[in-house]
Amino acid sequence: MDKRFLREAIRLSIEEMQAGVGGPFGAVVVRDGRILGTGCNRVTSAHDPTAHAEIVAIRDACARIEQFSLAGCELYASCEPCPMCLAAIYWARLDRLVYAATRADAAAAGFDDARIYDEIPRPPETRSLPTVQALRDEALAAFRAWAAKENRIEY
Amino acid sequence: MDKRFLREAIRLSIEEMQAGVGGPFGAVVVRDGRILGTGCNRVTSAHDPTAHAEIVAIRDACARIEQFSLAGCELYASCEPCPMCLAAIYWARLDRLVYAATRADAAAAGFDDARIYDEIPRPPETRSLPTVQALRDEALAAFRAWAAKENRIEY
Repeated sequence: MDKRFLREAIRLSIEEMQAGVGGPFGAVVVRDGRILGTGCNRVTSAHDPTAHAEIVAIRDACARIEQFSLAGCELYASCEPCPMCLAAIYWARLDRLVYAATRADAAAAGFDDARIYDEIPRPPETRSLPTVQALRDEALAAFRAWAAKENRIEY
Repeated sequence: MDKRFLREAIRLSIEEMQAGVGGPFGAVVVRDGRILGTGCNRVTSAHDPTAHAEIVAIRDACARIEQFSLAGCELYASCEPCPMCLAAIYWARLDRLVYAATRADAAAAGFDDARIYDEIPRPPETRSLPTVQALRDEALAAFRAWAAKENRIEY
């Protein structure tokens, strides 16, 4: 079963890339043994740096069921998810991840996944991205207002 | 200048949350001293677990200029970006990040940012997310096809 869905993700990674949609990455979201959502990399054609295959598949599946949680679902990806997509998998509450190629394979093909994996855990002041923090006290008002909001929908 | 844009991100984080759009987070993308894109958290209203303020602001800015790179731009966020959004900032090639509240503040308010920061750097087999790798050789065909593609657009 895993191989069937993983091959579908790989098929998408090749066909959509050949069609000019984006980079060579595909993904599918599966629930109860059926495909609920699909995605391929659309970064260049959609002018969207966040349109990685996994993100596109998660958004597709969520749109279909009109829910922001994919608890009970699994994600199959043609390549190990980058940190953006891995974190999205946690936020989507997916139960399980199956992937084929690795971040090292992606790096060898010219993609920055491995470099970004190295950057994320670093303290902000040691990252290559210049980062500044300010106005924390003013921003905390948003969390206080959230805590006081009676009809808030948590996620 | 930083404070002005950061206050705009904080304003969005409160107003849009109070309007029921999503969690208490806001962000703006700035280029040449002007706001190019804005975003607030839309997870619950859009049924999209990836619709964090920074992702929404990045997509908004990219849509406006019809480009997948925000090189030359800065991002202002009401709270420290989660790993998904931080990686998106790298993929978007943003020059600089300015944020207000911290991941610890977000955690105290009930959001999983800090937990996901802990998960990302771990080897897959030690994460709380069950993860399986398979079919690497079949997936490498996609990278070979990408390398051979003459009119590919890199990102």
